[in-house]
Amino acid sequence: MNRQIGKQSLQFAEAPFIISTANIVGTKEGDGPLKDCFDVIGEDDKFGQNTWEEAESTLQKEALTMALGKAGKKAEDVRYLFSGDLLGQNIATSFGLMDFKIPLFGLYGACSTCGEALSLGAMCVAGDYADCVAAMTSSHFASAEKQFRFPLEYANQRPKSATWTVTGSAAFLLGKEKSSVRIPEITTGIIEDYGIKDSMNMGAAMAPAACAVISRHLKDFNRKPKDYDKIITGDLGTVGREILIELLRKEGYDVGNVHTDCGIEIYDSERQGTGAGGSGCGCSAVTLSGHFLPKLINGEWKRILFVPTGALLSTVSFNEGMTVPGIAHAVVIEHAE
Amino acid sequence: MNRQIGKQSLQFAEAPFIISTANIVGTKEGDGPLKDCFDVIGEDDKFGQNTWEEAESTLQKEALTMALGKAGKKAEDVRYLFSGDLLGQNIATSFGLMDFKIPLFGLYGACSTCGEALSLGAMCVAGDYADCVAAMTSSHFASAEKQFRFPLEYANQRPKSATWTVTGSAAFLLGKEKSSVRIPEITTGIIEDYGIKDSMNMGAAMAPAACAVISRHLKDFNRKPKDYDKIITGDLGTVGREILIELLRKEGYDVGNVHTDCGIEIYDSERQGTGAGGSGCGCSAVTLSGHFLPKLINGEWKRILFVPTGALLSTVSFNEGMTVPGIAHAVVIEHAE
Repeated sequence: MNRQIGKQSLQFAEAPFIISTANIVGTKEGDGPLKDCFDVIGEDDKFGQNTWEEAESTLQKEALTMALGKAGKKAEDVRYLFSGDLLGQNIATSFGLMDFKIPLFGLYGACSTCGEALSLGAMCVAGDYADCVAAMTSSHFASAEKQFRFPLEYANQRPKSATWTVTGSAAFLLGKEKSSVRIPEITTGIIEDYGIKDSMNMGAAMAPAACAVISRHLKDFNRKPKDYDKIITGDLGTVGREILIELLRKEGYDVGNVHTDCGIEIYDSERQGTGAGGSGCGCSAVTLSGHFLPKLINGEWKRILFVPTGALLSTVSFNEGMTVPGIAHAVVIEHAE
Repeated sequence: MNRQIGKQSLQFAEAPFIISTANIVGTKEGDGPLKDCFDVIGEDDKFGQNTWEEAESTLQKEALTMALGKAGKKAEDVRYLFSGDLLGQNIATSFGLMDFKIPLFGLYGACSTCGEALSLGAMCVAGDYADCVAAMTSSHFASAEKQFRFPLEYANQRPKSATWTVTGSAAFLLGKEKSSVRIPEITTGIIEDYGIKDSMNMGAAMAPAACAVISRHLKDFNRKPKDYDKIITGDLGTVGREILIELLRKEGYDVGNVHTDCGIEIYDSERQGTGAGGSGCGCSAVTLSGHFLPKLINGEWKRILFVPTGALLSTVSFNEGMTVPGIAHAVVIEHAE
């Protein structure tokens, strides 16, 4: 039977498998240190579309199409889609996925959406509601800048603490069909608000939520950081990482050696001018899909804690002087013999 | 065991109960035909806050607080929140619910969100992932107008087909604890796009999705419309209702006598000047909570099909000339002896 552990964690009786995954990224990601691990690198960031939003929809469409192809499945084999993005009213998701004609649960968890989608997708499979579901998400630098900051044409300056929204999407097919990676446990996050009001420093806004869910997870399962090959946050960047390590130290956990962050891994910030690192729903999704999952699939790693992090703001809330609360969801992914 | 039926429907082995519900609405709803059925009617639509967005957050906070109070429960008794709203990046939800410190799954299904939240909440309880969860949503006329149309100060004119966003929020506590209403089955919707491009005629944009999920549901469970005391759509309004009835007739179903729509019920459109009827996530939520559930609780009705309907657009997608696709999720709610 599926087990509830503490107030926030679940352990599945039969861990759902990640049957396949696929990812697609833009030119900047394709020029970064992880360039060799992505399935597709776009030649230009419009991906053949007329608008940035349509380009982002195309990313989701391509990621799901490839994930289906790798698994030898058709759209009708997928019972539910769990997906979301950063744009107002989730338009990248709606327009990207509607042609698949699969029942859709639209999600919004800011940049934690990949964790939310994997969690709900795994619950759905382990609850016998589906044999196969897709968990996915996307972000696009240009559609996000236009929405949250300034249109690209404005050429605004950015502080060093600002992150760079990743152009990319990844899809994960979860199901009962055996593969070499599975999701045995999840720990679902609570909104944490430390009163940060600087939308150009989202790492600081999200670090408390990441700390809370990681320490909750370790306590719930009575584990230590070294029980994981890596504890991987979504998009804290270099600024948020320092804060997270310090906050976790106060909780009695030293994660300095075992922690990494998708936002730090995906760019060579110095050379590529990406500030504190990558961000956006797509950041953790494509980095997990292309870079980390292969290490679990081939058995080089046994177990990771994947913790996408989200900053809960809109331009309206920001302009009205509200804080930037954070949320993060933890997903255990392990090698299966 | 929970049963998958067809491609879109689920039947729960043990139907989760609706343990309690509570709702709060604004002045216009409190002046409408359903005024006697709401828990709280605000004295003014700012609800003591400085901004429309904070006012909407307050609606969610109050609805959940009341639902907890009615059930004699505390926030820590609720394992997960499933909630969303219409605002970009779900800010009404984030700021409204963060003080409860409950793990949150943020949702976006436009005005179908109440159906999405009830569906995922019921799956969560029936999957043994929680003994009690909250499913909720909100909308606010002024925050929605500001986001999707024009600021109120602009005093724009509205075509007759336009709907009026409901100011209101409702919360539903779902759980294993026995009550007199439960959710035995759900049918999850697929995005339908008939190419409608008029954001002032959302009833027409959503009717095809409502038709698709209702006819799918009836086929999956081999039922007729008369097997329900009511088939209740969310916010099609008078224009969308006519289209739905005609579309369902082509599918072989006559729902003329059994269908109603929350958007039609909540206002006296003629007197209140609300065009084709009410809309917004809050519309179906407060109408179910205040008006329909009591009839199921007292046994006057045995079974309804509740079908919140959503129009998937943003101002960006609309201004870029995209269509307005629709989605709808069907939830069976029945009287329990």
